[in-house]
Amino acid sequence: MKHHVIGIDFGTLSARALLLDTVTGEEKASAVMDYPRGVMERTMPDGRALERGSALQDPADFSDVLAPLIGRVLADASLTAGDVAGLGIDFTTCTMLPLDRNLRPLCHDPRFASEPHAYVRLWKHRTAQPQADAITALARERGEGWLSYYGGRISAEWMLPKILQTLDQAPEVFAATYRFFEGGDYLSLLLTGKESHSRSFTDLKANHAPDIGFPSPDFLSALHPALADLYGTRLSDRVDAVGRCAGRLNEQGAALTSLPVGTPLAMPVLDAGAAMPACGITGEGDLLMILGTSGVLQINHRRCLPVSGICGCMKEGLLPDYYTYEAGLSAIGDVFDWFVSSCLPAAYTDEAARRGISPHAYLTELSQDEPVGASGLLCLDWLCGNRSVLNDADLSGMILGLTLKTRPEQIYRALIEATAFGMKRACAAYEEAGIPIRRILAAGGIAHKNGMLMQIYADVLGREILLPESRQASARGCCIYAARAAGLYPTLRAAISALASPIRAVYRPIPDRAEAYGRLYREYLRLHDYFGRGENPIMKTLSALRKQ
Amino acid sequence: MKHHVIGIDFGTLSARALLLDTVTGEEKASAVMDYPRGVMERTMPDGRALERGSALQDPADFSDVLAPLIGRVLADASLTAGDVAGLGIDFTTCTMLPLDRNLRPLCHDPRFASEPHAYVRLWKHRTAQPQADAITALARERGEGWLSYYGGRISAEWMLPKILQTLDQAPEVFAATYRFFEGGDYLSLLLTGKESHSRSFTDLKANHAPDIGFPSPDFLSALHPALADLYGTRLSDRVDAVGRCAGRLNEQGAALTSLPVGTPLAMPVLDAGAAMPACGITGEGDLLMILGTSGVLQINHRRCLPVSGICGCMKEGLLPDYYTYEAGLSAIGDVFDWFVSSCLPAAYTDEAARRGISPHAYLTELSQDEPVGASGLLCLDWLCGNRSVLNDADLSGMILGLTLKTRPEQIYRALIEATAFGMKRACAAYEEAGIPIRRILAAGGIAHKNGMLMQIYADVLGREILLPESRQASARGCCIYAARAAGLYPTLRAAISALASPIRAVYRPIPDRAEAYGRLYREYLRLHDYFGRGENPIMKTLSALRKQ
Repeated sequence: MKHHVIGIDFGTLSARALLLDTVTGEEKASAVMDYPRGVMERTMPDGRALERGSALQDPADFSDVLAPLIGRVLADASLTAGDVAGLGIDFTTCTMLPLDRNLRPLCHDPRFASEPHAYVRLWKHRTAQPQADAITALARERGEGWLSYYGGRISAEWMLPKILQTLDQAPEVFAATYRFFEGGDYLSLLLTGKESHSRSFTDLKANHAPDIGFPSPDFLSALHPALADLYGTRLSDRVDAVGRCAGRLNEQGAALTSLPVGTPLAMPVLDAGAAMPACGITGEGDLLMILGTSGVLQINHRRCLPVSGICGCMKEGLLPDYYTYEAGLSAIGDVFDWFVSSCLPAAYTDEAARRGISPHAYLTELSQDEPVGASGLLCLDWLCGNRSVLNDADLSGMILGLTLKTRPEQIYRALIEATAFGMKRACAAYEEAGIPIRRILAAGGIAHKNGMLMQIYADVLGREILLPESRQASARGCCIYAARAAGLYPTLRAAISALASPIRAVYRPIPDRAEAYGRLYREYLRLHDYFGRGENPIMKTLSALRKQ
Repeated sequence: MKHHVIGIDFGTLSARALLLDTVTGEEKASAVMDYPRGVMERTMPDGRALERGSALQDPADFSDVLAPLIGRVLADASLTAGDVAGLGIDFTTCTMLPLDRNLRPLCHDPRFASEPHAYVRLWKHRTAQPQADAITALARERGEGWLSYYGGRISAEWMLPKILQTLDQAPEVFAATYRFFEGGDYLSLLLTGKESHSRSFTDLKANHAPDIGFPSPDFLSALHPALADLYGTRLSDRVDAVGRCAGRLNEQGAALTSLPVGTPLAMPVLDAGAAMPACGITGEGDLLMILGTSGVLQINHRRCLPVSGICGCMKEGLLPDYYTYEAGLSAIGDVFDWFVSSCLPAAYTDEAARRGISPHAYLTELSQDEPVGASGLLCLDWLCGNRSVLNDADLSGMILGLTLKTRPEQIYRALIEATAFGMKRACAAYEEAGIPIRRILAAGGIAHKNGMLMQIYADVLGREILLPESRQASARGCCIYAARAAGLYPTLRAAISALASPIRAVYRPIPDRAEAYGRLYREYLRLHDYFGRGENPIMKTLSALRKQ
């Protein structure tokens, strides 16, 4: 029987494929490929300038990487397309694009080739803050029950603000749109010819509140008359639970993947979420912390509860029988990368290069032994806004406590600490809502690369953090969904139990450091509330001035 | 008749001599020399580690530069020692040192050679914050009238905290001290053999409040029993007005300077203050802004008024018949230098080097055309504490509004803007106290080097700023005091009128930029009060943690 599966994790800048042997659990081959065209942030291909905060992409980027990636992992594992039992994919969300009546991307219609709103708007496309604010305000005014399932605030990153923005700024694109799709669902449609809408996406970013459903036509027409019938027309009203087969590759899908027609494709899941089965999580009490360019905190619960400060809640969006909650930090690795590329003097980059290590490794080495608090610094980690408790894209980062003796490695570590405080605040929101955290597991590139960060997180959170072995947890999770979709296991739970990655390391809090961080966390919280909850709205004022 | 004078400006890292022709007003020669030993900040000469915030020096540094500097300017001007009508000096303050019974520096006694408190403690030696806080608290508790003449708070930089610290931490040094001296008065003593204590120093940094006098023995003994008789014993109770002759060079003075015995030496003045006569200021209404490593704001008034947020007030400390008020920012150029050395990526330093310009010039070029507010950044300029309205060395710097797109040149400019806001707040304190500002004049290295900064200052202050031509205003001021001491002019006012530097440039506020900066200034003020006045004492909390 075929017992190999392929999972593909569609990230922001690249896609990563993993080939898993479902008998041994061995990761037999993996491959990464940057998208050939990549993210457009400043200009369109024709040179047209983009609004600040834009992040667009051509959807051909997604299909173009399939065959090369699959070809490479098969070759590396000395297998052929015929050995593949199933395919699973995950995708960033809300990464959306408009399709025309023939279900083709609108940006491929020459009439719209230079229209930004016709392209894929990535999850981190953040120009729709006014629309997000309007939706939040109206929902509050009307007392919409679903609002509490999104942390009480709609993010500029989500589906509805992005659609409203299209209507406001490019009505001709809105008019020509037959249906707005999530990137993952679009890929599934492209490969199988079947339309489906994964609960990973609908529940989390398209305002489908578990047990409530979509916003009412009443609400939508109050928002904008042209949106009254949005769900069911330009936005599907389907919601598909995950852990099942989305369809089988049709001829187009087979051509794009170089896999046989009929290969089962698992229902797509959100990228970070795919890590959950890979880490062996099958139910309540396990918090999964995914540390990459951004940070994600996921946890399951039997009941559907309103949680302050979550991004959203999916019903069977990752696991059958459970609601999965997602919260997170909009930037973690991105913050450290910004620091290294924008704030690090030549003496540091030169020394790191001389020693053949990354600037991150060098900064870590310089700062890891300094006692907690010795830098005198405290930062707010909102360099990409706040997507957690405050859910406000117009908030910004802060470094406080600078002196003429402050050294770069101290700022670097203070930024790491700030993300840890942000994580702790997000965890607290779960616990305040009655969702218990019994274990914490970690995944993501940074979790494997930066031991100092992991120790700081353990100290700040005051809890053990378990690190599973797989360095590609999301792709491995896609493999687990693929194995279930291919029928290799009777249930998703059985597939997880068999194929989860073993624990490789445990980071334990060091009591006196944890205590010192407790003091700093109280200071962080005070600034968090002062700047984040309207007492001093300076960050929003400055953001508005900046945009003028 | 001899008509050349020499002025020497004793700065923090170097001394600068200027030779002025008092007939033509021409600056005939100038020379700069770094102190041969320099500032000790981290370790003593014997390797002993110093407390953070230390800034010590060997007083031999001061006498050792005299002959070489004077020799160089004379040689460059093709003159001889016999052509010099008089000598004037200025000095940083409170830069203090203990002398023994023979009026020799205690640090030159082998018994104290490795004792930090026996050395010169520079103005920026800032480890006496606890002592400063204790003095402030006691003065408040007792309702001491002099407190209001020091902005309501005693700074860690001043004489009394430094003496109390000596008593607390090195009682044997205190016991062995015959007299604590200011650096400028010490040099005057060394050159003339006569003890004098310039009002530039006593009034500003040694708690001699104009019209009130020194703190009472009652207050002092409440502070520490051993201090009851401080003034008149270990600290002189003399106060000498400036604008007159301090004495004439004795044989030792002649040997140290290579000038003839009998050459008149002007009463020393504080370094920044010496710029005032050079800028032609002879009375009320003219604010002098001196922009260097730190920033100073000086203004004269006929009356003695309590001003919130000044460093101090001198009676005839710079000009006869006037009270001179001093306020200021503890770091301006130091902040920009910190940024360039600690936060500037290689791409920037490389490009500046390639083009043969300084990183400062390159950053200025990159940032000068950005509209006000376009960076979205706002900083607090307290990287060296606040020596202005808040007068608190434990406050620290802040950068707010950071995003992943923030560029180094934007932070650089935001730091410049923060110092401008700090200056505006300090100016407001003068006006609130009833001291009118009619014109603003600028001096100091940065005023001549950075036109963008000057324009920002004009825009933020909403006023014209006049820039006199001389690039060495303090040294030129010393020449003016020397000319008066030598009797070349009947009054100091006459000397100033004859020898002040002409205006070279005028920076005028640009209305729409001034208006935009008005909005940012309101935000600055709010943070200034929030972090600076105790509502959120986080900066002091972090500073305390750092020092642990």
